[in-house]
Amino acid sequence: MPTENIYAEILTIGDEILYGQITDTNSQWMSAELDKAGFRVARKVAIGDTKAAILQGVTQAEQSVAQVVLMTGGLGPTKDDITKTTLAEYFGSPMRLDEGVLANITRLFAQRGRTVSPTNQLQAQVPQLCQVLMNEVGTAPGMWFERGGKVFVSMPGVPHEMKWLMANHVIPRLRQYFATPVIAHKMIRTINIPESTLSDLIEPWELALPPHIRLAYLPKMGQVRLRLTGTGNDQATLEAEMQAQIAAVLPLIQKNVYGFDDDEIEKTVGRLLVQTGHTIATAESCTGGYVAHQLTQWPGSSRYFVGGIVAYSNEVKMSQLGVNAATLAAHGAVSEATALEMATHVRQQYGASLGIATTGVAGPDGGTPEKPVGTVWIALAHAQGAEARKLQLSSERALNISLTNNSLLNWVRLWLEQAGA
Amino acid sequence: MPTENIYAEILTIGDEILYGQITDTNSQWMSAELDKAGFRVARKVAIGDTKAAILQGVTQAEQSVAQVVLMTGGLGPTKDDITKTTLAEYFGSPMRLDEGVLANITRLFAQRGRTVSPTNQLQAQVPQLCQVLMNEVGTAPGMWFERGGKVFVSMPGVPHEMKWLMANHVIPRLRQYFATPVIAHKMIRTINIPESTLSDLIEPWELALPPHIRLAYLPKMGQVRLRLTGTGNDQATLEAEMQAQIAAVLPLIQKNVYGFDDDEIEKTVGRLLVQTGHTIATAESCTGGYVAHQLTQWPGSSRYFVGGIVAYSNEVKMSQLGVNAATLAAHGAVSEATALEMATHVRQQYGASLGIATTGVAGPDGGTPEKPVGTVWIALAHAQGAEARKLQLSSERALNISLTNNSLLNWVRLWLEQAGA
Repeated sequence: MPTENIYAEILTIGDEILYGQITDTNSQWMSAELDKAGFRVARKVAIGDTKAAILQGVTQAEQSVAQVVLMTGGLGPTKDDITKTTLAEYFGSPMRLDEGVLANITRLFAQRGRTVSPTNQLQAQVPQLCQVLMNEVGTAPGMWFERGGKVFVSMPGVPHEMKWLMANHVIPRLRQYFATPVIAHKMIRTINIPESTLSDLIEPWELALPPHIRLAYLPKMGQVRLRLTGTGNDQATLEAEMQAQIAAVLPLIQKNVYGFDDDEIEKTVGRLLVQTGHTIATAESCTGGYVAHQLTQWPGSSRYFVGGIVAYSNEVKMSQLGVNAATLAAHGAVSEATALEMATHVRQQYGASLGIATTGVAGPDGGTPEKPVGTVWIALAHAQGAEARKLQLSSERALNISLTNNSLLNWVRLWLEQAGA
Repeated sequence: MPTENIYAEILTIGDEILYGQITDTNSQWMSAELDKAGFRVARKVAIGDTKAAILQGVTQAEQSVAQVVLMTGGLGPTKDDITKTTLAEYFGSPMRLDEGVLANITRLFAQRGRTVSPTNQLQAQVPQLCQVLMNEVGTAPGMWFERGGKVFVSMPGVPHEMKWLMANHVIPRLRQYFATPVIAHKMIRTINIPESTLSDLIEPWELALPPHIRLAYLPKMGQVRLRLTGTGNDQATLEAEMQAQIAAVLPLIQKNVYGFDDDEIEKTVGRLLVQTGHTIATAESCTGGYVAHQLTQWPGSSRYFVGGIVAYSNEVKMSQLGVNAATLAAHGAVSEATALEMATHVRQQYGASLGIATTGVAGPDGGTPEKPVGTVWIALAHAQGAEARKLQLSSERALNISLTNNSLLNWVRLWLEQAGA
C-alpha cells in the first residue's frame, strides 16, 4: 500500500469567517473527511471575498506541498461572489453555459414555484476548463480543475451543499484520481471516563497497534470518542483486523463504552429501552429538564419516554413528586433519600417501568461546606426497588448539568444491558 | 479619525486543527476581538507543528498586507512544540533566560505543590529580541516581536491562556502601537424574525448610517443579533451617537427586540419575572423539557422557575396535566384546546402565577395533511385567563424545538412588559 502522504489544502472564501461572526465548521468537517479518506491536510486558509486575496490564495496553494486544493464559498448569484470568475481568470479559461446546470437550476426553482431570473441564470456559466460537479441540492455547481497533477475543487459555502458535493463527488473522485488505499474507520464511544484515564488504561494496546491502524482521541463534554483509521489493500481483511483490535481493547474499558460509530448515549438508551420493553420517566431538579430534552431530541422517543417532572422548588418536590417533608427536613433536597423518593414516585405516578432522578448543586452558587457546588445525587427506580449514587462534579453549571445527564444515562444503559435484558 | 484599515493575520499552529479533531474556536474569538478593536482580519491560516510550515507561514504573513500577525500554539514544554525556537531563528535572535517568567512558572508549580523540572524551566527561555507578555494563568509566556512597523505576537493555544493574554496585553498594546481610534460596540438582540424580513424593515435606517458606524447581522437559530461598531475620537460623543441610532431603529422592530449586548432571551424573561414578582411553570409536549432546561440553565432561576411537566404521552397529559379525554378525542393532542388546558393546569397545579405550554409535531415523522410536521400550539395562562397561538415551523426536529422555545419565551417577555408590569 502507498506510504507517501497526499497533502491537501482547504481554502475558505468569505468575510464572515474573518470577522469572527460565524464559526468555521465547514473546514473542520472537510478536514475530518479528508483525513478519513487518507489525505493529510497540510494547511487551512481563510480569506475574504476579494479577487486579490483569492488569486494569492490559489497561487500559494498551487506552489505548496498540497496536491489537493479544496475551496468553499463565493459562489452565490450576487456581485459579492467572485470565486468563479476569479478561478476562470487564474486558469486562463473562458466561460461557457452549462445546459445541465441550467436544467438543475430551473428544476430547483420550479420546486419552489419560481422562475429563473437572469441573475440566477449566471450560475449556469462555468469555466470551460473545469469539470462540473452537479449540485443536486443547490444552484451553484461544484467545479473540478486539474493542473500539473494537482486537483482544485471549488464548492459553495452553504454547509449542506458542500457536504453533499463532498460525499457524492469530491471524495470518491479524489480517491480514484490519487488511487488511495482502502480506508476503514471505526469509532468507539466512551462516556464518564477522563481522557487521561482512558489513555492510561489502553496504553499497552495503543502502543501495540500496527502502523497502518491509527488512533485519535476526540473528546467532548464528558465523552471521549476513540477513532481508529486503518489503511490497507483489501477491505474485508482490513475490517477484520480492526474488529480484532476493537475486540482486544473492549475488555479494558467495557463499562465506559456505550456505543460505536454514530451512536449517541440517548440513542443507545432508547434502543435498549425498546429492545427490553421498558419505558422511562424523569424527575429532575438540578438538570432542570435537560435529561428529558436529551431523551426526546431524537425521533421515535415517544415509544419509550412517557414524560417527566422538573421539580425545582421544595414545594413542587413535595406536592408533585411526593417527597416527604420529613425527608427534606432531615436530609435536604440534595440527598440520597430525596433522590430515591423522586425516582420512585415519578415511576409510579407516570406509570413507567423505570424512573430516574437528579438532585444536586449545579452552581455557581448554592454550595455549602458539606455539599459544595458539583454535589449531585442521581437515582434509578425499577420494579425491584431503587438505587442512588453520589457524584462530585465540577464548579461549572453547564458542565455539571451535562455530566449529570451522562452519568445517569450511562447507568441506565448498564442496568438495561444487565438486569433489564 | 484614521480611515485606513489596519490589517491582521491569524496563524494557528497545531496538527489537531488540521485533522478536524477539534473546532478552531480560538481563531473565531480572536477575529471578533480584533474586529471589535478596529483591526481588519485579512487572512486566517492554520498549519501543522513543523518548522518548515511555521517558517513559511510567518514569511507569507510578513509579506502580506497584514501589519499585525497573531500566532497561537506550539508553546508547550514538549519536543513537539517548536514555535518559540522557530521564531527565534526567523528573527535571527539568540535565546535568553527570563527571570520573571521563571519566577511565574515556579509560582504556578508551587500552587499545585510541584517543583519545576528542567523541561519546564525551558519555558523560561525566550528570544532576546522579543518583549515578554507575562502569562499569569499559564507557564508559556506571550512574545511580542516588532519588525518593519509590523507586530508579531506568539501566544499559547490553550484557550483561557490565549484569552487572558489578548485581554490583558495584546489588544491594549496593539491599540497603543497603532494609535487606533476610539471604538464602541452595541448589540441589539432580536428574536422570531427572519434575517431578510429584519433587513427589509430597517433598510432605510441602515442606508442612512454614517460611515463610521458599521452594522453586522449575526444570525443563530431563530435569533438575529445586530452589532453596531462605531469608531471616533471621543468615547462619550461616540456612545451618544450610537444610542441615538439605536433609539431611531428600535420603533421599527421593538416587538422582536428582547435585549441588548449580553442578554439572552431566557435571562431577559428571568429578569422580568423577578421584577414583576411572577413565577412560572412549564407543561411541555413537543419541546420535551427544552423550555425548562433553557429557563434553568442560568444561575438564580430558582427565584422564578417553580417546575414543570414533560407530558409526552396522552396518558400523562390526562393523568398529570388534567387534560380532558374529551378534548384529546375531539381536537387531538396538537390543538388549541389541549395547549390551553396544559398551560392552565400546570399553573394551578404548581402554584405558579404563569403557566406556559407547548404541543406540536416536532418531526420528522408524525405529520398529517391537517397537521403537518412543524405545526405547534403554544399557550400562556395567567390570573386573567389563558391564550394560545399556532406556529407553523420547519421540517427539522431540532430547529422546531428551538423555534418553539423562542416564540414562547418572547411571548412571555412581551406579556410581562405589558400586562405584567
